[in-house]
Amino acid sequence: MKGRMQIDKIGEFALIERLARILPKVPKGVLGIGDDTAVLPFSKDKHLLFTTDMMAQDVHFTMRMDPEGIGHKALACNISDIAAMGGKPTYAVVSIAMPAKTDVKFIEGVYKGLARTAKAFKVSIVGGDSIKADKIIINVALLGEVSKKHLVMRSGAQPGDWVFVSGPLGGSFNSGHHLSFTPCVKEAQFLIKNFKPSAMMDISDGLPGDLNHILRSSGVGVKLWPEAVPVYRGCTYEQALGDGEDYELLFTLSPKKAVKLMQWQIKKHVFMFYPIGEIIADKKQRVNVKSFTHY
Amino acid sequence: MKGRMQIDKIGEFALIERLARILPKVPKGVLGIGDDTAVLPFSKDKHLLFTTDMMAQDVHFTMRMDPEGIGHKALACNISDIAAMGGKPTYAVVSIAMPAKTDVKFIEGVYKGLARTAKAFKVSIVGGDSIKADKIIINVALLGEVSKKHLVMRSGAQPGDWVFVSGPLGGSFNSGHHLSFTPCVKEAQFLIKNFKPSAMMDISDGLPGDLNHILRSSGVGVKLWPEAVPVYRGCTYEQALGDGEDYELLFTLSPKKAVKLMQWQIKKHVFMFYPIGEIIADKKQRVNVKSFTHY
Repeated sequence: MKGRMQIDKIGEFALIERLARILPKVPKGVLGIGDDTAVLPFSKDKHLLFTTDMMAQDVHFTMRMDPEGIGHKALACNISDIAAMGGKPTYAVVSIAMPAKTDVKFIEGVYKGLARTAKAFKVSIVGGDSIKADKIIINVALLGEVSKKHLVMRSGAQPGDWVFVSGPLGGSFNSGHHLSFTPCVKEAQFLIKNFKPSAMMDISDGLPGDLNHILRSSGVGVKLWPEAVPVYRGCTYEQALGDGEDYELLFTLSPKKAVKLMQWQIKKHVFMFYPIGEIIADKKQRVNVKSFTHY
Repeated sequence: MKGRMQIDKIGEFALIERLARILPKVPKGVLGIGDDTAVLPFSKDKHLLFTTDMMAQDVHFTMRMDPEGIGHKALACNISDIAAMGGKPTYAVVSIAMPAKTDVKFIEGVYKGLARTAKAFKVSIVGGDSIKADKIIINVALLGEVSKKHLVMRSGAQPGDWVFVSGPLGGSFNSGHHLSFTPCVKEAQFLIKNFKPSAMMDISDGLPGDLNHILRSSGVGVKLWPEAVPVYRGCTYEQALGDGEDYELLFTLSPKKAVKLMQWQIKKHVFMFYPIGEIIADKKQRVNVKSFTHY
């Protein structure tokens, strides 16, 4: 009998790889584990998107935080995943575990936050589950739709492409931004219709790790322009790279489209998409991952 | 400021009603909270079904139980919900919260159970999330499909209909049946194609409470034949009514179909669908709910 091995010894990504190997292969025409959302057959013109996100008390939120913000976050981080595939969210189910002694008003606050964000993004909350547990755990599973021609995955980055991020990074947890951020559905739709990215995802674990997901999926490397990374006000550079929970879009554009996007920003007097590096062929050139993950 | 009110003071069903009121109304053509699964638009002939179920360590399972059984249960109780609508399961996403010190082999066992049941019921597990928490919590969200003509809801029971249950009840948690039960997809498909029930659901919280869901949704009452309730071997009558987690089908049939089903059982020398009562018009005739719920 082999010895006991603890999860914190192997890390979250290694665990996910081990678990994914146990599961049966998905059928042809289905994109399973490995992108922001699963991509499922739907209709002639559309794919169905399916994603889920779980949050735990004292890990992703505390009982001192605004319950409406917590409800918002639980749904919005899923909406962010749908947006990053080029899709629009549609239907959600919400599960909540809570101690028997929880204040009803707190849970109602969480649901008010869920309701507000659902309304704002035209999501219908159509079901759920509630159970007893020692601490509050919230899980949202969200469906979305995407036109086949609008689908963007992590795997399309090409050498020469520029890497962009849709906003400043860092300090999201400490500043409260993680409870109030707006998922980038509009930004993603704008990009897809005008400058369709070759690869896209949202930043939840932190720029370095998430950019490496794109590199690994696309079989490429990156030359990061580290000083170009936009840093959130009041944050250090290290926080911008290490904190995570930014829920900004991270995407790659062909050089031609990159220039057009920069020209558009100049013309419109806005700067909302920040170029932060260039994709290169050398796969070994990954980003040095800082220690921030939920494990 | 109003006083603090705890969840265990108002109960699970009252809480769900309060929370459901907070959420925005679902669009026309969508069935939201209140049945085994949500029913969503899909194609000309089919509805999409969407459901979720959460399980907590020391509430729905313990660390001494077989991890493969736990994985099985997490998926199978969702499959049971899809079956009870007349549907077949298709795609699932799985979230798991776990302490950093959890044995990797335990989690792998859970996933082996998930994988085995997914394979047996042709479900693809296409995504998930894993987070840190003090105890293990597993959430599965499951999609399914149902032909429009096969959809069965809780709301169709008519006075005169007979009430049936698909198997003996009771002792599921103590006997380990809750870790190894087979969700009644075959049974539900058989019924729908041959004796389409007027209402159907699966028994998860216990016969009395679940039958009352059908009564409430259908606006009817029941005359239960309590001694006809099939009791699982080794169980008391009280356990059969109070334990829950049976995952048998509870359904109603018109008197004509009820007789045909009984004739079919006699002809085939099988007795798998047990008549346990009759639907009556008097709404006040509900089942006296025992105290078993997860709250």
